[in-house]
Amino acid sequence: MADHIRVAIAGYGNLGRGVEAALAQNPDMRLVGVFSRRDSASVTPLDSQVPVYPMSEIETFADDIDVMVLCGGSKTDLPEQGPYLAQFFTTVDSFDTHATVNDYHAALDTPARKAGTVALMSVGWDPGLFSLNRAFGEAVLAEGETYSFWGKGLSQGHSQAVRSVDGVKKGVQYTLPSEDAIARVRRGEQPELSTREKHVRECYVVLEDGADADTVRDTIVNMPHYFADYDTEVHFIDDETFARDHSAMPHGGFVIRSGVTGDGNKQSIEYSLALGSNPEFTASALVAYARAAYRLAQRGESGARTVFDVAPGLLSPKDPAQLRKELL
Amino acid sequence: MADHIRVAIAGYGNLGRGVEAALAQNPDMRLVGVFSRRDSASVTPLDSQVPVYPMSEIETFADDIDVMVLCGGSKTDLPEQGPYLAQFFTTVDSFDTHATVNDYHAALDTPARKAGTVALMSVGWDPGLFSLNRAFGEAVLAEGETYSFWGKGLSQGHSQAVRSVDGVKKGVQYTLPSEDAIARVRRGEQPELSTREKHVRECYVVLEDGADADTVRDTIVNMPHYFADYDTEVHFIDDETFARDHSAMPHGGFVIRSGVTGDGNKQSIEYSLALGSNPEFTASALVAYARAAYRLAQRGESGARTVFDVAPGLLSPKDPAQLRKELL
Repeated sequence: MADHIRVAIAGYGNLGRGVEAALAQNPDMRLVGVFSRRDSASVTPLDSQVPVYPMSEIETFADDIDVMVLCGGSKTDLPEQGPYLAQFFTTVDSFDTHATVNDYHAALDTPARKAGTVALMSVGWDPGLFSLNRAFGEAVLAEGETYSFWGKGLSQGHSQAVRSVDGVKKGVQYTLPSEDAIARVRRGEQPELSTREKHVRECYVVLEDGADADTVRDTIVNMPHYFADYDTEVHFIDDETFARDHSAMPHGGFVIRSGVTGDGNKQSIEYSLALGSNPEFTASALVAYARAAYRLAQRGESGARTVFDVAPGLLSPKDPAQLRKELL
Repeated sequence: MADHIRVAIAGYGNLGRGVEAALAQNPDMRLVGVFSRRDSASVTPLDSQVPVYPMSEIETFADDIDVMVLCGGSKTDLPEQGPYLAQFFTTVDSFDTHATVNDYHAALDTPARKAGTVALMSVGWDPGLFSLNRAFGEAVLAEGETYSFWGKGLSQGHSQAVRSVDGVKKGVQYTLPSEDAIARVRRGEQPELSTREKHVRECYVVLEDGADADTVRDTIVNMPHYFADYDTEVHFIDDETFARDHSAMPHGGFVIRSGVTGDGNKQSIEYSLALGSNPEFTASALVAYARAAYRLAQRGESGARTVFDVAPGLLSPKDPAQLRKELL
């Protein structure tokens, strides 16, 4: 066993940068390198000492890396990279296409079992910490309703989906909770609300020269899983406005479980996040779960895993007796 | 494997009644019976069909019960009953004497390992769900401060400690957060606060005839672990006032992790509970973790466990694929 958990990053955008920053806050882990499909010279880690390698050579590092943190997008990168890299590495990713989680789980599970690696998927805050709070809420309060609200905030996965559309030069997507829906939940009404009743989606797009706005708008609002089921607004803006108003990446939201026990006693559990940087927070969750994935693999476990399968103590650098003494 | 998880309750006060009520909300579990040291005829379960057995016969039920939920107090009942019952049953308890958790863990671990049972300790909301949120918070946001606040609410463990004092006929204890401390945390000051700076403790006591008020007050405020480290006020009231003002058992509180990532981005995680009935909520957590303890034992695990050791998916009646599909 190495002195440090040896971690590498596959894909170096906002999320990859966040993982590098989070690793620097965790002294039991060490960043071995960054893998990118881009020309290595054009990739500049925060720490200039961190080596950058071409993605095409990643297999040759199988013996040098304990955990590979996958920082690509869910729409096209992860469905391909996840199952491929699970053949060589214990991996952690933030796959967030809710509709296909079980397909992705199956696609990871086979190569990971065969290789004896752990493939820990859908880590972050939603999916991830919000998922856990939905599970805890309904397990503890068996009779009740669970509500997840997001925003106002920038969604990385949906912004990437917007940017994948032909004709889009720059794009961001914000999710906003419906004020009316929140008010009803907080009054304890336990209303039935569809996801589209709870939120609206706003996209801000800079078009490529010559792109047709109506075609771009139609492609976005009809995109399955991402936008088709929501009220989606698309705003077209220029480069200057985009740079001025849409460069920060805040987010937040909450999960509420509103339940009843015994002879009608109301019980409420609320989990909320106020995030100055969404990618840095997601990255911080990935790094904590990278520690857990490493420990699961060290124990001889293999196969696909989600946050539901990971005992919370495995996330902490503290040993079990210290955790009990300090935090129980 | 039985059709239902067969559960029994050891000790039938407010918490035991809450466990009975929670089991009725979970159709995969069945209450086999209640064990009490009191005369069985004087113990009246919510459901009159539930059999009541003397605690002295509990060993003879080893083959009939999958999980024993221990509903005694942490001060005198659990340190004795926990290690004893772990010899015969997979157990779940709400042990809450923070200062001695590792001693209690060791006392459970030996008999449980020997018997092949799981002894899951310190389940509830604090310790329990609050402990988990402290662990998640510091694992995900490595640089930051964690704050736990309680109340205003009635504390079961501390009320029982008050009632254990000679001369006390009836007693309750409320924990109140310090308003000043909360305000500082919410401003993002990350202040250093001792537990006694964050909270005050208020006790309401009805004295036995002839008991000396000053002696009772001194015994309470100097009780180690429970009161000695806090600002504690003791109020003496009469039976009528007690019945009118101190019969409900609400509670609540929150855990805040205030952290920083990357280049100084503020990140905040807040977990809060608003509980109409503290014992019913603690009981609901015990029942969800009883399901998990059963599953751990079915897998062949044995020994003492805490919430840190339990994968969250084990709490849910849903199977892993359903959990992923519905909650991830």
